[in-house]
Amino acid sequence: MITSPANPRVKALGTLRRRRVREERRRTLVEGYEELGLALDAGVVPEELYYCPELMGEQARAAGLVERVGALGTEVVQLSRAAFEKAAYREGPDGFLAVVATVDRRCADLDVPEGALLLVCQGVEKPGNLGAMLRTADAAGVDAVIAADPVTDWGNPNTVRASKGTVFSVPVASDDTATVVAWLEERGIELVATTPDTDTEHTDLDYTGGVAIAVGTEKTGLTDEVLDGAGHRVRIPMVGRANSLNVATSAAIVVYEAVRQRRAR
Amino acid sequence: MITSPANPRVKALGTLRRRRVREERRRTLVEGYEELGLALDAGVVPEELYYCPELMGEQARAAGLVERVGALGTEVVQLSRAAFEKAAYREGPDGFLAVVATVDRRCADLDVPEGALLLVCQGVEKPGNLGAMLRTADAAGVDAVIAADPVTDWGNPNTVRASKGTVFSVPVASDDTATVVAWLEERGIELVATTPDTDTEHTDLDYTGGVAIAVGTEKTGLTDEVLDGAGHRVRIPMVGRANSLNVATSAAIVVYEAVRQRRAR
Repeated sequence: MITSPANPRVKALGTLRRRRVREERRRTLVEGYEELGLALDAGVVPEELYYCPELMGEQARAAGLVERVGALGTEVVQLSRAAFEKAAYREGPDGFLAVVATVDRRCADLDVPEGALLLVCQGVEKPGNLGAMLRTADAAGVDAVIAADPVTDWGNPNTVRASKGTVFSVPVASDDTATVVAWLEERGIELVATTPDTDTEHTDLDYTGGVAIAVGTEKTGLTDEVLDGAGHRVRIPMVGRANSLNVATSAAIVVYEAVRQRRAR
Repeated sequence: MITSPANPRVKALGTLRRRRVREERRRTLVEGYEELGLALDAGVVPEELYYCPELMGEQARAAGLVERVGALGTEVVQLSRAAFEKAAYREGPDGFLAVVATVDRRCADLDVPEGALLLVCQGVEKPGNLGAMLRTADAAGVDAVIAADPVTDWGNPNTVRASKGTVFSVPVASDDTATVVAWLEERGIELVATTPDTDTEHTDLDYTGGVAIAVGTEKTGLTDEVLDGAGHRVRIPMVGRANSLNVATSAAIVVYEAVRQRRAR
């Protein structure tokens, strides 16, 4: 048990909020009862678990989770409230914080099936959007999600949280855009760019073969590197004033059009 | 010009953060250069504009917006930085804050066309989700968005912000669930409930007539009042672990399936 917020181990947990530290240590944080449960369901074995009984809700249920993690061989450490609140990154923590290996891969490490359905997110900045796209990918059965030149990393605790643990169940990778485009081409996976600059609507295209749907940043969309490397460009028809769907919403609409076609096949 | 953060008018602006005050005064706040521009584009005439040159970005562009609002007959008041930061609700304000009439109506006040496409959101709590659904509704050409037993109001500044101003361009209403269900029935608009508890997939249904797509809360979904009042129940096929798409994502997927069918008609 650790009681002091100044404990070096508690301080080390805090440093995992920084991307550079996550990338060096290849570790990230999973915080919260629900998120931890989802990570475990996805087969994650935490390296360390920190818990604080004082902050936990239903004691019996919470104790069950501590036991479940302990049974995996994970090191389990109890923290005082002051120490836990120092280590936690969310407001109103619920007494669970785990250190897990990051799930990041390069494209070359991905093992995707014939006729795969992929989602490529270029330059997305907001962890909440990345997390929402992972939930969609999980629900839709997308074979992998690739971040091209990502501004945020898959290990960002807010991405982990927004993904509701799906960052551990959906294969993810990140790479520079040129590598992503070349890797898709090598595998004969058709790259489909979503952009307002085309007359082809997203429902006009055939997604029943191997296909990667690409979305760009909210502000500027996809770069020319993707637009020029794409076999097809599609737009989602829009009639309104604001003329810009949220990037995660756009991804969901096109991915589920692909799912519709593939299920009807 | 007002310099003191203790000025009664500055304090009164702060009270508009409370739902009760917004509902009593039938006024809300629009904050930010971009949001204000979108509101103006949608035909909104602010009652009061507060601005702070010190906080503004590109001065010429910003001054243009102050002038544009002034030309509408709106009362324009300059605030000191201290006063503006007291009145503003977001962090890092950009020097624009307007008081506008709320856009809330009852179902009975809505004027929807024959064969309308509507979106019904029951009990949605998060302003961010309501805002995202408004952006989708705007893009998809949904004729109106109805909040049934809403936990948050259309005038919530965070809803206004997340909607990117579309709360002013898309007709919105709120009512209790029983009234919404009865109103739809009277008009012969088919109510379609999204729920996991059905074998009908969302792509199996015909949405080419008058139809209202209903989504519930993230935690518990739609109530029996909607499920029993609905002519059809549909589910979005999901294969993953987390088994719950974000409510705004679900709404977008079903709404755009309706759009696909209606455009192909």
